[in-house]
Amino acid sequence: MQRPLAFACLLATAAPLFAAPRVHIALPERCRLLTRQFFDLRVEATDLADTEATLILRDEKGRDITAAFGPPDEVSSDNDHLPASLDRAWTFRAKSFATEGIKTVMAEVSDSTGTSRDSRRIGVQRFKARPPGKKNLILFIGDAMGESYRDAGRLVAGSTGGGMRGGFFDELLQMDRMPYTGTVLTHAHNAVVPDSANTASAWASGNKTTNGALNVFPDNNDWRSTEAAFLDNPRFETLWSYLKRLHGYRTGIVTTTEVTDATPAAEGAYVGYRTLHKVIARQFVDGTFMPGPAFDVILGGGKDHFDMRTIETSGDTRNLIDELVTRGYTQVKDRGELNALNEPPELLLGLFSSSAMTVAYDKLGYTRPPGEFSTFHPAFPNQPFLEEMTAKAIATLSKDERPFILMVEGGMIDKQSHGNHAAGTIWDVIELDRAIGVGRSYAREEKKRKTLLIATADHNQTMQVLGMVDTTVPEALENLRSGSGFTGLVTGAVWGFPDYPADPASGYPRNDNRYRLSLGFRTHDHTGTPVPLSAEGPGASLFTGTWDQTDLFFKMARVLDSDTTKLDRLEREKARLKIVDQNYAETP
Amino acid sequence: MQRPLAFACLLATAAPLFAAPRVHIALPERCRLLTRQFFDLRVEATDLADTEATLILRDEKGRDITAAFGPPDEVSSDNDHLPASLDRAWTFRAKSFATEGIKTVMAEVSDSTGTSRDSRRIGVQRFKARPPGKKNLILFIGDAMGESYRDAGRLVAGSTGGGMRGGFFDELLQMDRMPYTGTVLTHAHNAVVPDSANTASAWASGNKTTNGALNVFPDNNDWRSTEAAFLDNPRFETLWSYLKRLHGYRTGIVTTTEVTDATPAAEGAYVGYRTLHKVIARQFVDGTFMPGPAFDVILGGGKDHFDMRTIETSGDTRNLIDELVTRGYTQVKDRGELNALNEPPELLLGLFSSSAMTVAYDKLGYTRPPGEFSTFHPAFPNQPFLEEMTAKAIATLSKDERPFILMVEGGMIDKQSHGNHAAGTIWDVIELDRAIGVGRSYAREEKKRKTLLIATADHNQTMQVLGMVDTTVPEALENLRSGSGFTGLVTGAVWGFPDYPADPASGYPRNDNRYRLSLGFRTHDHTGTPVPLSAEGPGASLFTGTWDQTDLFFKMARVLDSDTTKLDRLEREKARLKIVDQNYAETP
Repeated sequence: MQRPLAFACLLATAAPLFAAPRVHIALPERCRLLTRQFFDLRVEATDLADTEATLILRDEKGRDITAAFGPPDEVSSDNDHLPASLDRAWTFRAKSFATEGIKTVMAEVSDSTGTSRDSRRIGVQRFKARPPGKKNLILFIGDAMGESYRDAGRLVAGSTGGGMRGGFFDELLQMDRMPYTGTVLTHAHNAVVPDSANTASAWASGNKTTNGALNVFPDNNDWRSTEAAFLDNPRFETLWSYLKRLHGYRTGIVTTTEVTDATPAAEGAYVGYRTLHKVIARQFVDGTFMPGPAFDVILGGGKDHFDMRTIETSGDTRNLIDELVTRGYTQVKDRGELNALNEPPELLLGLFSSSAMTVAYDKLGYTRPPGEFSTFHPAFPNQPFLEEMTAKAIATLSKDERPFILMVEGGMIDKQSHGNHAAGTIWDVIELDRAIGVGRSYAREEKKRKTLLIATADHNQTMQVLGMVDTTVPEALENLRSGSGFTGLVTGAVWGFPDYPADPASGYPRNDNRYRLSLGFRTHDHTGTPVPLSAEGPGASLFTGTWDQTDLFFKMARVLDSDTTKLDRLEREKARLKIVDQNYAETP
Repeated sequence: MQRPLAFACLLATAAPLFAAPRVHIALPERCRLLTRQFFDLRVEATDLADTEATLILRDEKGRDITAAFGPPDEVSSDNDHLPASLDRAWTFRAKSFATEGIKTVMAEVSDSTGTSRDSRRIGVQRFKARPPGKKNLILFIGDAMGESYRDAGRLVAGSTGGGMRGGFFDELLQMDRMPYTGTVLTHAHNAVVPDSANTASAWASGNKTTNGALNVFPDNNDWRSTEAAFLDNPRFETLWSYLKRLHGYRTGIVTTTEVTDATPAAEGAYVGYRTLHKVIARQFVDGTFMPGPAFDVILGGGKDHFDMRTIETSGDTRNLIDELVTRGYTQVKDRGELNALNEPPELLLGLFSSSAMTVAYDKLGYTRPPGEFSTFHPAFPNQPFLEEMTAKAIATLSKDERPFILMVEGGMIDKQSHGNHAAGTIWDVIELDRAIGVGRSYAREEKKRKTLLIATADHNQTMQVLGMVDTTVPEALENLRSGSGFTGLVTGAVWGFPDYPADPASGYPRNDNRYRLSLGFRTHDHTGTPVPLSAEGPGASLFTGTWDQTDLFFKMARVLDSDTTKLDRLEREKARLKIVDQNYAETP
């Protein structure tokens, strides 16, 4: 472990001298950290006159702090794509600040022609996690679950059994019942419209990065597009790693897509591009800022990245599943084995499909509407639902007094939406909501510990609720896909409300009824629109308002770090001022 | 004024007797009221055997409460569209409950063949408004301003002057800076996708109604589609009327569309269909539940409905502007006259256009993008901005110690969006946000009184932020309209952020820059998706969470009715737990 840097937090502005070298600190403006959270500092000098350029690091008062950073872990040249001019880069790995405040790091590079500087201000938030700050956190992510996606899930699930009448629901979604809501801005470091890697990095390590990157920032050798170039980028440590390393937290990820896909990967991986699944799997097992596996619970798809490894595809021939089992993980291979776990194990591994898991609609065995394709996987016919994985993950992580942090993702909402598959998308929203119900039940029943529950999305997509159609009308427009001709009249449009029936065996709605939603997609891709967030439990009131996705990291940390008893009294006062309930008049 | 009904609040269920008459109380399930809020009770009996059918009203214990309701104000026959069978309807006008609780009204109709019953449970919320409950309320409505609309306004306004870098904004919208957010479900009484009349009725009088209706409920003669049939429907009193009648509130409406359009009309009109503009104007002047003008301040468009009236179009030849001036209203005719008001008048009337007002984009004189049409009105060339109207409305309503309630609408966001006119839409979002800024400035400066500020929308539409384009690329896709062919590639799409310049004269962004948003519309109509809400001021924390639009009425009433001092103290506790700010690193 590296020694934290401690220096004063006065502000200073570094004026460039416009000398020959160009200096760039490869950290974004407005980067933020927790005290003792690891980050890498990379200084890039270009347009050098000679190869003997030297680096001095200074603080906001101009004091030399080079020694406090220690020798650079890497010094490299020929980084940029301009072979005609000399360049040099210094990388200091796994540094941190011991104290809170606004820190300044100035990099001063000199060559024979002169001296140039760059500086970054870094906001550092205190984290202590003293009791009674030992709280649990479950973060539920619906990948691409913007407001319309929640809406569609609510209309389908909420209309079963006559549950929607006169524009009201008898029952809202589980996530709707969480008392606090916020609006989360999701723009990427380099684009209005984000992807799942940069958005997950925002909450996982607290900083915005470029599309495709996981907890690392661009540096000046990324133009090479090689694996090596994308593995040396400056990193910010994730909250999962931080809490495990410093505060004894148990950690977990659960998803319906590959566990190495962007959203779950962001809790524990550090790569410049998200498609490096095999590297991500290896990082999960080997660890990054501390040795050993990153998570105590891993449940989802993506088995091939763990046990189908070759030198060509993975750089190694390790069987990572065997390694985890050797390290004490209990492995479950299908739904039956998962649900047969009566006693929660110490460590739990379940990889239920070679790649992404079968989506809820197909696990239920329903017939897909025209234009949608089943994701049923004959080699993995017996896959668990997300709510079942969530239940076992919580049971495992909460088996003793240690606190835990868990991310649960409905990962196929996004992928089904990319294909404009409305039914596949909506039933996965409902599956996630049932997992949220499992989390809420756990939190309600816990005695001593407190669990903060967050339900949100990483980014939005284009599906919208256009209305309702009578499916007995020929060519009723159930799904207006992107690119399809649209004359301005929704065929089969009717007033009233949907009437999805419940499947008694599974509890899920069926999709064979007469009056169904009419959905519309505009593209096959993401949008730049904010996503809704719901929060419940200790400190949940901190999550209302309109704020950036990176704030989610610092708000979660603040709740885990603080005594929220006084703040949480707000709920009682709100109850005193409650309004007359609308749901008194349910049909008997 | 009618005597309030007082009876106990035990619950009872009325089992129908399946005798010959059919009985229906023309009030929706889950209807709710404030104590002393007026409503009309209409009982409809059909399939009668004779014309001598009698009505008894009973409470939840079966006690006869007919005398407490008094004689019906109207008794009519031949209401329904089945002339072969006899029918009868009884309407009791302007009734109310004196006490809070869940009330039951059972209607029991007997003819020679037997007796039938229907019953409704009505939730009644206490309203006292004792000091310190005398608070002001300003409700800002962006018509159709769903999440993506706010987002587009934020990206355009927030990117001026280099204000958006690395995915962060230096400044969010005024409405974004309000500390509490909620998610509001907007479904109509009869449809998943609502319109502006039923949604405005939800917050104005607390109940869901059918699309097109303003504060009234369907009855069984609406099939006639005559004006008379749409004027006799059962009504629920608006909060604006209620507070003026019982608690001495000053009242106002401000909009950029016609003041008789659905959203502003809902604060003071009671009609079965929103297109009855001339009737709505007359109701504004004559009053409904109390005689005299409904509002102390009326600012917006729609002048023709007041002073261009004929027997054929309006049923009268009154000049309602002259009448209001005679009653003491100060009239302003254009932007110059409005802004020249140095001393706020007692009563203020400004109708700045014959119909809807010119939208912000055209008031600024900007060139419309291809396919968009200017709304500039040569006969009304000098129209004020919404922020200017808002400033004068607040000055007028707050001129003395009486509390006030004001609705301010960006009314053309919706109408421009119906036409898929992205620029017209977005600049009107920005105009509304500047009006919200005026309200926030007022609230910050007030000493003795407290003002609750709410910013929300009535419903959503389909515009979405697809990304950003370089407009120097030929046929760069700035606006993907509904019905347009889409191949899956956005022409001219680029990474990075927009760079709208600010117009120094007006403070608004210009639209002649290189890197602009790429927007997409899916239809020309509304969606069924919830809308965001932001709240600030006393009791604002009651507005977070996911809830129905009718709750907005009861939450606003609860804040105006209650001492929120203790609740509001929790803002201080939140400040203690604040996170490290992201905006420390602004470029000097």
